[in-house]
Amino acid sequence: MNTIGVDLGGTNIVCGVVDGEGRIICKNSCKTGISGGRENVLSNIFMCVDGLAQKTDFEDVSAIGIGTPGAVDKGVVIGGAENIPDWKGVALVSRVEEKFNKPTFASNDVTLYTLGEAIYGAGAGAKSIVCLTIGTGIGGGVIIDGELFRGSSDCAAEVGHMTINVDGRKCNCGGVGCFESYASATAIIKAGREAVKVNPESIILTLAGEESVITAEDVFEAAKRKDKSALEVVREAGRYLGAGIGNLINLFNPEVVIIGGGVSRAGEIILEVIDEALKRHSLEANLRGVRIVLAKLGDTAGIIGAAVFAGRELEKKD
Amino acid sequence: MNTIGVDLGGTNIVCGVVDGEGRIICKNSCKTGISGGRENVLSNIFMCVDGLAQKTDFEDVSAIGIGTPGAVDKGVVIGGAENIPDWKGVALVSRVEEKFNKPTFASNDVTLYTLGEAIYGAGAGAKSIVCLTIGTGIGGGVIIDGELFRGSSDCAAEVGHMTINVDGRKCNCGGVGCFESYASATAIIKAGREAVKVNPESIILTLAGEESVITAEDVFEAAKRKDKSALEVVREAGRYLGAGIGNLINLFNPEVVIIGGGVSRAGEIILEVIDEALKRHSLEANLRGVRIVLAKLGDTAGIIGAAVFAGRELEKKD
Repeated sequence: MNTIGVDLGGTNIVCGVVDGEGRIICKNSCKTGISGGRENVLSNIFMCVDGLAQKTDFEDVSAIGIGTPGAVDKGVVIGGAENIPDWKGVALVSRVEEKFNKPTFASNDVTLYTLGEAIYGAGAGAKSIVCLTIGTGIGGGVIIDGELFRGSSDCAAEVGHMTINVDGRKCNCGGVGCFESYASATAIIKAGREAVKVNPESIILTLAGEESVITAEDVFEAAKRKDKSALEVVREAGRYLGAGIGNLINLFNPEVVIIGGGVSRAGEIILEVIDEALKRHSLEANLRGVRIVLAKLGDTAGIIGAAVFAGRELEKKD
Repeated sequence: MNTIGVDLGGTNIVCGVVDGEGRIICKNSCKTGISGGRENVLSNIFMCVDGLAQKTDFEDVSAIGIGTPGAVDKGVVIGGAENIPDWKGVALVSRVEEKFNKPTFASNDVTLYTLGEAIYGAGAGAKSIVCLTIGTGIGGGVIIDGELFRGSSDCAAEVGHMTINVDGRKCNCGGVGCFESYASATAIIKAGREAVKVNPESIILTLAGEESVITAEDVFEAAKRKDKSALEVVREAGRYLGAGIGNLINLFNPEVVIIGGGVSRAGEIILEVIDEALKRHSLEANLRGVRIVLAKLGDTAGIIGAAVFAGRELEKKD
């Protein structure tokens, strides 16, 4: 039996029909259209899934799984989805269920991304996994004994807002010293811009064209070319990543830590700088045996994870 | 059926016979005698349990549980027990099993303390709990779905060595900016001593007699009497406690956080300063609904937890 996985992002919706071995049979995508408000986002989800129904045998789909920003309780988005205006309070599960007449399940998008990577990606075979998605912010997901760990109210693994610098920078969340203020792509971009102000000769600037459009990719690419300013920025990010990931290793004692999200596209260099810093922030016993790896499934992890989730939840229900 | 719980500390061994409802039927204690080396510590454990055998019907004891500093793998202490010299490598379970001919189980002492508080103490009724023991260092234990969470190699919940200040103080563990360097009783004592140097009029000094013997209790007592220097020290500790506990709430999303160990004897004042700081370091959704409470069982939590552990492990084995 196949299931459908939907990955709802702030910019795009991607979805796919996934078989029992985690293979995507067909895919569809569209814009999220947040400026059109809640109902518009819902119609776009409907449209995206409808597109799949055209491409495949819809009768053969047993359930729909949806990964959404924020936390979900009893099928309703209860908060933490600030990048989709008016999304809090939407009865996501019942709206999709009504529309397609298929059992529907929803959870946090990073959580389901984690499930995808854990089962069919970089974590395959491991039972205890911590996954980070490092992009605009830093999201997290945790697998314990092969199962998603979501805490007492679906809010666990808020990795990005872990304090790593108690007297540090203010974060968008209102907190102080949060991990994502130091180690997200956003933080790397900011540091890259500062770096080219000090050293306009940096390859970062050559790659980007101008300061205002510097991306994290530019910084990593320049670092790979041994640009001194870029290497400094990347090492500094690695130092912070080491502190945050070290905390997760000390607390969750996982077999595998998966680095996903945009920053993971930097490749091996990111693993190297994390490795350097980890020894300072993780106990020897905890560090022994843990593997730090890059995510494998790219953007499809969210689709696959949502589809796997739907299948598992359907089984529990039966 | 009753079980025996043994709580092995750096200074004292305490043990007790515990019934199926978590009630201690009889207790015994002795010095750990670490200066006598590994074999001396083992004989003291034997002697302590032997004392129980004299006081109770030993036939009626189904199993023995032992909480030890460090991590335990397959009955052997594998590390992290630095305060008992030469303790690493001791085949604790088989040695005690041979001596008493009872099924024996061992795990980390703070973990079993957590289990005791979780089941029969401050966490009774909750399924998802984080427990901290704040004393010389900061230990931690986590309960998920009513079960101990120990990670992939019995090293989870190393709360004290979570980085909360990435560019901060060096810790005994070799790391930097560890939670326990800022918020343990040791850190509070250090800050108290610094405070009376600046302000020798402080009640802290009156209570302690002289600077070199200031305890965390003196600092808390002076704070309760509104001593300005003491209040500053306690608020500062609370600020750090808030950062560390905030992280745990963001990551584990527990129903209850239990504050145990020596510092918990300070009472309500410690909860107040933590409360103040938590809002800055924990997400609103995670903070909603979580209860921060003081441990209830005092020094008996370790005995009760070890006894409960023995009963549970015996059941799994059968």
